[in-house]
Amino acid sequence: MKIIIIGATGTIGRHVATLFEGKHELIKVGTTKGDYQIDICSEQSIKIFFETIGPFDALISTTGKAAFKSLKDLSNADFRLGLDNKLLGQISLVLIGQHYINPAGSFTLTSGILSEDPVPGGSALSTVNGAINAFVKGAAIELKNDVRINAVSPGVVEDSPSFFEVFPGHIPVKMERVANAYYKSVMGALTGETIRVF
Amino acid sequence: MKIIIIGATGTIGRHVATLFEGKHELIKVGTTKGDYQIDICSEQSIKIFFETIGPFDALISTTGKAAFKSLKDLSNADFRLGLDNKLLGQISLVLIGQHYINPAGSFTLTSGILSEDPVPGGSALSTVNGAINAFVKGAAIELKNDVRINAVSPGVVEDSPSFFEVFPGHIPVKMERVANAYYKSVMGALTGETIRVF
Repeated sequence: MKIIIIGATGTIGRHVATLFEGKHELIKVGTTKGDYQIDICSEQSIKIFFETIGPFDALISTTGKAAFKSLKDLSNADFRLGLDNKLLGQISLVLIGQHYINPAGSFTLTSGILSEDPVPGGSALSTVNGAINAFVKGAAIELKNDVRINAVSPGVVEDSPSFFEVFPGHIPVKMERVANAYYKSVMGALTGETIRVF
Repeated sequence: MKIIIIGATGTIGRHVATLFEGKHELIKVGTTKGDYQIDICSEQSIKIFFETIGPFDALISTTGKAAFKSLKDLSNADFRLGLDNKLLGQISLVLIGQHYINPAGSFTLTSGILSEDPVPGGSALSTVNGAINAFVKGAAIELKNDVRINAVSPGVVEDSPSFFEVFPGHIPVKMERVANAYYKSVMGALTGETIRVF
């Protein structure tokens, strides 16, 4: 299988890459590292990437930025970062990628626990994560040629200790569990689902 | 109670206004009609409005545009309409309005059924609606002075027959049920909830 991992060198992406490594053709994509660099906020950048690599079987996105800031201090511009990057950035990979993916291929995006179990400072991320979960539900019924789409929604992960303080009482999730959720999405038959790992 | 209704002359808004009429001080806001006109996509327009009307007790938003279009034909620009208007437009009313609302006041936004029960052509709306539901969950735990926030998520409504065809098998919801969901949000004690009317 030809599998694209966007964010392949990041906290989650490198564990996902390890699971598929050696068994599949991996295309590792980053913002500054990896085999290819793309800017998920640029349609042009995404299109050039797909034109360059040709048809593929699975796209996994483990990337996306959003503001983490108290509601009382959140500006429109803070909010827009998450809408443009983690939300529309990931969605653009699907809107454009649907025209390049092979039949029976799959898309797997990343949301996160804050849409259903919020923490102070997390309202922009809650919003983006809820949006991603709903997008995969809506898109799944429209994708053609048996193409599937899911979201993985991880809790705070063990490899991100800097976040532990703002997730009081949350038990950090093992990277192996998180990586396997992406593996399940790609290798299984689910579609339109949010795969919760928390 | 001093109650602002954004979208007060629209399909849902005018039924909501009728419920509160005569019992409360209503401020009816529209894009082109109503007592005041604002552009929810302009922070400046929203700020001027709040400065003009002064402190208030409840804000109800029944407004917001998004594209309805097949996934295969959806462009980034189509998608951005919903993110800028129905999503960030409504959220801006809260981000800015939180600094003007009275203690124990409430915000009530509008999402919709498509986040959980999608139809072909509705993926942009699914996304925006899921985002609104998650935003109110995230924002509810951060609002100060007992201020509350909820979303009303209506199914296709009886007053919008032009949508019936794209919601096959959906039973149109009575306007009275929809309007009462907003009434429940304002007059009750719920916060962080999605009030489903379908």
